[in-house]
Amino acid sequence: MTRDEALALDARDPLAPLREQFELPGKLVYLDGNSLGVLPRATAQRVQQVIAREWGQGLIGSWNSADWMTLPQRVGDKIATLVGAGPGELVAADSTSVNLFKVLAAALAMQREDAPGRSVIVSERSNFPTDLYIAQSLARQHGCTLRLVDAPEQIPAALDADTAVLMLTQVNYRTGWLHDMAGLSAAAHAAGALALWDLAHSAGALPVALNADGADFAVGCGYKYLNGGPGAPAFAWVRPGLVDRFRQPLSGWLGHAAPFAFTPGYEPAAGITRYLCGTPPVLALAALECGVDTLLAARPLGGMAAIRAKSLALTECFAGWVRQRCAGFGLELASPADGARRGSQVCLAFDEASEAGRAGAAYAVVQALIARGVVGDFRAGDPAAARSADRADILRFGVTPLYTRFVDVWDAVDDLRTVLAGAEWREPRFNQRGLVT
Amino acid sequence: MTRDEALALDARDPLAPLREQFELPGKLVYLDGNSLGVLPRATAQRVQQVIAREWGQGLIGSWNSADWMTLPQRVGDKIATLVGAGPGELVAADSTSVNLFKVLAAALAMQREDAPGRSVIVSERSNFPTDLYIAQSLARQHGCTLRLVDAPEQIPAALDADTAVLMLTQVNYRTGWLHDMAGLSAAAHAAGALALWDLAHSAGALPVALNADGADFAVGCGYKYLNGGPGAPAFAWVRPGLVDRFRQPLSGWLGHAAPFAFTPGYEPAAGITRYLCGTPPVLALAALECGVDTLLAARPLGGMAAIRAKSLALTECFAGWVRQRCAGFGLELASPADGARRGSQVCLAFDEASEAGRAGAAYAVVQALIARGVVGDFRAGDPAAARSADRADILRFGVTPLYTRFVDVWDAVDDLRTVLAGAEWREPRFNQRGLVT
Repeated sequence: MTRDEALALDARDPLAPLREQFELPGKLVYLDGNSLGVLPRATAQRVQQVIAREWGQGLIGSWNSADWMTLPQRVGDKIATLVGAGPGELVAADSTSVNLFKVLAAALAMQREDAPGRSVIVSERSNFPTDLYIAQSLARQHGCTLRLVDAPEQIPAALDADTAVLMLTQVNYRTGWLHDMAGLSAAAHAAGALALWDLAHSAGALPVALNADGADFAVGCGYKYLNGGPGAPAFAWVRPGLVDRFRQPLSGWLGHAAPFAFTPGYEPAAGITRYLCGTPPVLALAALECGVDTLLAARPLGGMAAIRAKSLALTECFAGWVRQRCAGFGLELASPADGARRGSQVCLAFDEASEAGRAGAAYAVVQALIARGVVGDFRAGDPAAARSADRADILRFGVTPLYTRFVDVWDAVDDLRTVLAGAEWREPRFNQRGLVT
Repeated sequence: MTRDEALALDARDPLAPLREQFELPGKLVYLDGNSLGVLPRATAQRVQQVIAREWGQGLIGSWNSADWMTLPQRVGDKIATLVGAGPGELVAADSTSVNLFKVLAAALAMQREDAPGRSVIVSERSNFPTDLYIAQSLARQHGCTLRLVDAPEQIPAALDADTAVLMLTQVNYRTGWLHDMAGLSAAAHAAGALALWDLAHSAGALPVALNADGADFAVGCGYKYLNGGPGAPAFAWVRPGLVDRFRQPLSGWLGHAAPFAFTPGYEPAAGITRYLCGTPPVLALAALECGVDTLLAARPLGGMAAIRAKSLALTECFAGWVRQRCAGFGLELASPADGARRGSQVCLAFDEASEAGRAGAAYAVVQALIARGVVGDFRAGDPAAARSADRADILRFGVTPLYTRFVDVWDAVDDLRTVLAGAEWREPRFNQRGLVT
């Protein structure tokens, strides 16, 4: 395989034109769209329009005339088409953490009524920490406990007569493991539990089928694969048959049945609108809408199925080229080898016995790559984890088919090989651990 | 009094140059800055810079290099100077409703530990509904009740040995009544209760002294007098001596002591940072910072004291000119006549016996004024309220001394007189009630 062959793959890629939707800095190879998606070309102008015309000129009247008030539902309806949900089922609002609080609280309240004995939330120890932190808070409040499994294979056995909710992030942020939403939702239901899914690393990255796969509650992130901008609003979805059964506790005025009646008593709106709380963040929702539109633009080219096919091809190439071209440096694949179980990322870790592994070099290698214009992520290992894969430091590379090219992956592996073979990663400047997200 | 005399007041106004900070549409007289502040000139360019340079070019690296991660604290420190709080005491984040949930939950948790018998939240029936809705949710969860008084004068007597928290909005959104924060906080403390203040209509409108006046918890809004843009992030403050005593329930990763350690167990950060939850909304915080800066620009001209002096002069003129020039139409002042008890707004209501009162014309008059370029607000009366003042429909006019001129108030009253004397408010097109915020 040569760089020209990678270029040939790009020339044959039906999604290649979609890259033109984005502002991409110079020669950067950006493999961190699973942390922060890149800037769509449409965003700057749209936000400018909202600021100058809708806010600056329209002022308070724009809540009606520019449809600001319905932005959470309008953007939500667009996101719904990406995750197997129907219109009116999903709202864009608040942060992922806040939305998780809403839906997990509702799930626990529902179980307290239907099955008071159930007091366990099952999740993964390596779930994204904010999910575990929110679950800990609600577990304390509801007198529940959090049961964390060490490995995905242990999840079915962890579901029992005590389980109230199975709470998982569909794609694990560290390893890229893609859970079987249909199978695990069915297993949760068979055990009498509810299935709650965080789509942070799957919405916009691969086809998600919330209704068809039996999810009960879902949340997701706006600033990763949805390209909504730093700290973009998140989203919440509840299965239509469940949504009207419970109030969520963040009962702010925008979730009220008649917010502008200004009545002193709370009456929840029908449907997913009751999962809104405060005033919609208009500028941020306008930017998020531009990001979501970059994914909707893929529809005539095959939509999420085509995005998934390219994502798998990119991660296969990445893993294969690392195997071929970076042999001998102790790098191992830490993401699933089976494409069916892999999200849109490739994770690598050093064999503890290798030179770089002994030196704890993963962080320095990622920094040296960034200095060369290849942006990936470092994720520290969890020293207390049961599995060696979870204890290991991770080099994480996300692929985002709307703008990642095969030649980007080729160049990234080429730079990785250069960094590993050279002395860069031993330089002290690459070993000063800073803040990474 | 003549229009020229109003112009002369503007010519003598030391704050007059501050109006240049804003983009104001044409001839509009905008008296709704207490609902949505106007657009600062700096905002469009600053947000553009964040989008194009920090996000577009800097991408994920901007979390460090552009200090995105500390925006909640940095903007919070600026807001703190406007509300009598110290550096490191206040964060800008989430919505007012979400922040109220955090601080009220913490207050109730604290009382449950210190004084388990206290199970009453005291507030006003005419408090802004979202505050009451959030309180209802937490009251249900904590087994508490909400005790709502009908009139501000009844608050001290409502505080007793059962009271856990006194929760008030410092300036009532409907009537503009300005509570005595020092006196009522002291009364709450004397009764063994905690004092929680919503500054939605006071932060940026008048001097607030959270520490000096004995407040325990506070929240506030970013898009009214702080000019942060539609749905701007809100803020939360906790008295430094209390802040480390309790976790707030929205325990997301940004409130963790070490969010980037990615440890599975939640450990709250020290200080007000534990009141953060999800990832900071960067675009919205950048816009909010520009809005807050328009108030900080008043500092060399006398700061919040000078803003307050002008606000009182504007509202005195408004009320006086209405008395002089709109006599005979049954309009009555619904905001406090005593300046010491009045926020930065003038509220009017029709005597029920007047022609407009009998016709329920308040909404139509506000709409007719908007059609003439004078933007105020209508707030419907609460038919079930005990006091006639609360049952009445309200015409609400906010003054915002950074950009409201005396001649604007003159022109507004002139148009009000024209509308009342004419037939406009009887036209059906002004009586179709739409969505107002």
